Amino acid sequence: MNDLLKCDATSLIAQVQSGKVRHRDVAEAYLERISEKDQDLGAYIHCDPELVRASADALDAQEAGRLAGLPVGVKDVIDTADMPTGYGSEAYAGRRPFWDAPCVTQTKAAGGLILGKTVSTEFAMASPGKTRNPWNLEHTPGGSSSGSCAAVAAGMALMAFGTQTAGSIIRPASYCGVVGYKPSFGLLEPAEVKVLAHSLDTLGLVTRTVRDAALVASVLAGRPGLVLSDELSTAPRVGLFRTPPFDAADPATAAALERAVARIEAAGGTVVEIEVPANFGSTHELHAAVMGWEVTRALSYERTVLWDQLTQTTRDFLTEKALVDAPAYDKACAALPAVRAALAEAMADVDVLLAPSAPGTAPKGLSSTGAPTFNTPWTLLQMPALSVPAYFENGLPVGVQVIGRRGEDARTLAAAQFVEAALDVVKEPV
Amino acid sequence: MNDLLKCDATSLIAQVQSGKVRHRDVAEAYLERISEKDQDLGAYIHCDPELVRASADALDAQEAGRLAGLPVGVKDVIDTADMPTGYGSEAYAGRRPFWDAPCVTQTKAAGGLILGKTVSTEFAMASPGKTRNPWNLEHTPGGSSSGSCAAVAAGMALMAFGTQTAGSIIRPASYCGVVGYKPSFGLLEPAEVKVLAHSLDTLGLVTRTVRDAALVASVLAGRPGLVLSDELSTAPRVGLFRTPPFDAADPATAAALERAVARIEAAGGTVVEIEVPANFGSTHELHAAVMGWEVTRALSYERTVLWDQLTQTTRDFLTEKALVDAPAYDKACAALPAVRAALAEAMADVDVLLAPSAPGTAPKGLSSTGAPTFNTPWTLLQMPALSVPAYFENGLPVGVQVIGRRGEDARTLAAAQFVEAALDVVKEPV
Repeated sequence: MNDLLKCDATSLIAQVQSGKVRHRDVAEAYLERISEKDQDLGAYIHCDPELVRASADALDAQEAGRLAGLPVGVKDVIDTADMPTGYGSEAYAGRRPFWDAPCVTQTKAAGGLILGKTVSTEFAMASPGKTRNPWNLEHTPGGSSSGSCAAVAAGMALMAFGTQTAGSIIRPASYCGVVGYKPSFGLLEPAEVKVLAHSLDTLGLVTRTVRDAALVASVLAGRPGLVLSDELSTAPRVGLFRTPPFDAADPATAAALERAVARIEAAGGTVVEIEVPANFGSTHELHAAVMGWEVTRALSYERTVLWDQLTQTTRDFLTEKALVDAPAYDKACAALPAVRAALAEAMADVDVLLAPSAPGTAPKGLSSTGAPTFNTPWTLLQMPALSVPAYFENGLPVGVQVIGRRGEDARTLAAAQFVEAALDVVKEPV
Repeated sequence: MNDLLKCDATSLIAQVQSGKVRHRDVAEAYLERISEKDQDLGAYIHCDPELVRASADALDAQEAGRLAGLPVGVKDVIDTADMPTGYGSEAYAGRRPFWDAPCVTQTKAAGGLILGKTVSTEFAMASPGKTRNPWNLEHTPGGSSSGSCAAVAAGMALMAFGTQTAGSIIRPASYCGVVGYKPSFGLLEPAEVKVLAHSLDTLGLVTRTVRDAALVASVLAGRPGLVLSDELSTAPRVGLFRTPPFDAADPATAAALERAVARIEAAGGTVVEIEVPANFGSTHELHAAVMGWEVTRALSYERTVLWDQLTQTTRDFLTEKALVDAPAYDKACAALPAVRAALAEAMADVDVLLAPSAPGTAPKGLSSTGAPTFNTPWTLLQMPALSVPAYFENGLPVGVQVIGRRGEDARTLAAAQFVEAALDVVKEPV
């Protein structure tokens, strides 16, 4: 493997900034990797090598930016002006928006090298794309950010954008053995990303390390305080949170949590068990009501005009979502403050929560991308969350989730970095 | 004037539903009106008569919908698949999105007749379009929903979509003598409307009457409970709220409020003066911080790639907005709950607030669309608000604003209808 492919983002960017490595070198190394690996994996829906080379050459002619040479994959639900954007759907295949979404514009402006568009399930919902799990091609990579997680896992990008409305970043990150970061709601600008549910949709990042996620977020969010040094922060106080329905967790997930608890404590962190508030179990139902009502409205055009062009899985998904009525939605919105308050009280003495990322390792088969069971509450509550690789079973990774208070992304990232170091899982591409 | 042009939306829809009037009859009447009036007014940026006729004929061949024959203008910041969408900017002139925004899809599906795209200021911000005030061509129609308000005022549409991030529906509605309805944040689905500030942007309606606004909102929002009958509801308890800085209000605005108070009381309503909470004056600053930070990020592509194609007014506007930093934004977000709480307490004994819609009548000249002084607090607080025509000075209208609690759109609409009836301002097109 080309040595450049082994670098994490933080060190690669430093090398490009110092002039030791050109943007073009990064482009060639990653294009070669993609040509070797992606025929099997199908992480990219669009990659034009000549466009990547031209972008790299243009970047080489400028002053190096804060994300100089960062090789980036852009989930296909995010608008790009120089690449087609299909929103994961045959109904929009080959369409070309007028603009780059803000997150893409910001990445380019900071010297990031966009490699292509990564596969999304249809409209970031339930109907899978072509991507396979890099750890075992017979298994799902998870979804909806399937291509983004597979690309980072396989060394075909060092950062890829993901989006999460239910469990679309954290779950595939867990299945692919990479870091998935769903920031606090609104931390990364979500404009010109296909809208599903306006109070849930969250733009996030997939990276190989927590420090890389923090670096990229700091630049895109305009928040220098998010950057992490390679020295770990003070050992965090961690609350073990057995997200209900915890009996939906496979032994692999239980083992990942157990390993994480032991390692965090061995590294000097504190772990206490958090009593799950009585009203917390309702979050699944509340999420379903909020998402159902909002997505039914947001996808009006697709439901009304494009219906015959959607997959049966998408039609079934949308048909079920459309059962939510206005009173159910209003009731869910009204119930949220009490859930937030009870959780705030329950976690008063800890920095972050530690919880499952996914029910288990990636399920076998490509017809489903798995269940967002352990993700929907945190999306609903708009809290920052990271999945960090924690454990392997039968050669497949499983992560643990580190969750912070809304707006406390810096503290959450620092704690996740501590957990990541304690877990000490190998970080090389598959 | 063609009799059809005198009908309000509620009665026109009933006539089309009964088969007495065809969609095509409505199309011809409104197209004729547009051809007579719009050369002077410039409310439409795009109107293709053949497309309107074809749509009308297609609607005549179907079962009549709940908005059968409603003649609609669509603000140019809202995506349409069969008409160009320029977002009020030369930089996007003639672009054609892949989809109709949900609000357009819903309108068409309910039998509404889309007449064309109405003029917006550039990106619904400060740089004016070509529209003139129907009451006096030398005066601004207000903005950013300039074309929508002028079109409804001049009988060139019975409903037009508006959007408000600062004061872009309520202010031009006041200047044009029409009803402007900014619903509770998120009541109308905002997807595929150009994003400015994700926690402020609100999709709303411009109509001739409050009842028309309620009817359209009930259909688009999927909330039958919003419909108003022509019998007035119980007389509301109204809180007179002298939005600070109240000394920015011209005599015309003061007179409009005075007239409204007298008329409401004469009609059996109760009016009490609300003590403005001490922290309420901060809402202007909080709004500026939230909008500044969010719009700077949302318009990344325009700021980075299209800068040279924007007007000087837009560049100045964006340059000033970009001065907000992350700590100022975070501080503003953190300050909001206390403002909400104090206001909730202050208005505990009333159904709605009565406040200025705009500082006065429409200013002379077309180089500015006026100030959102009396609108930004309510946008920030995501509360439903309507402007209702109240008073004339020198032949120019001025409205009063009826504001309700967030989520209480039904109660707010009912109270606004009561205020409208009490004010008894003539409702015929200019």
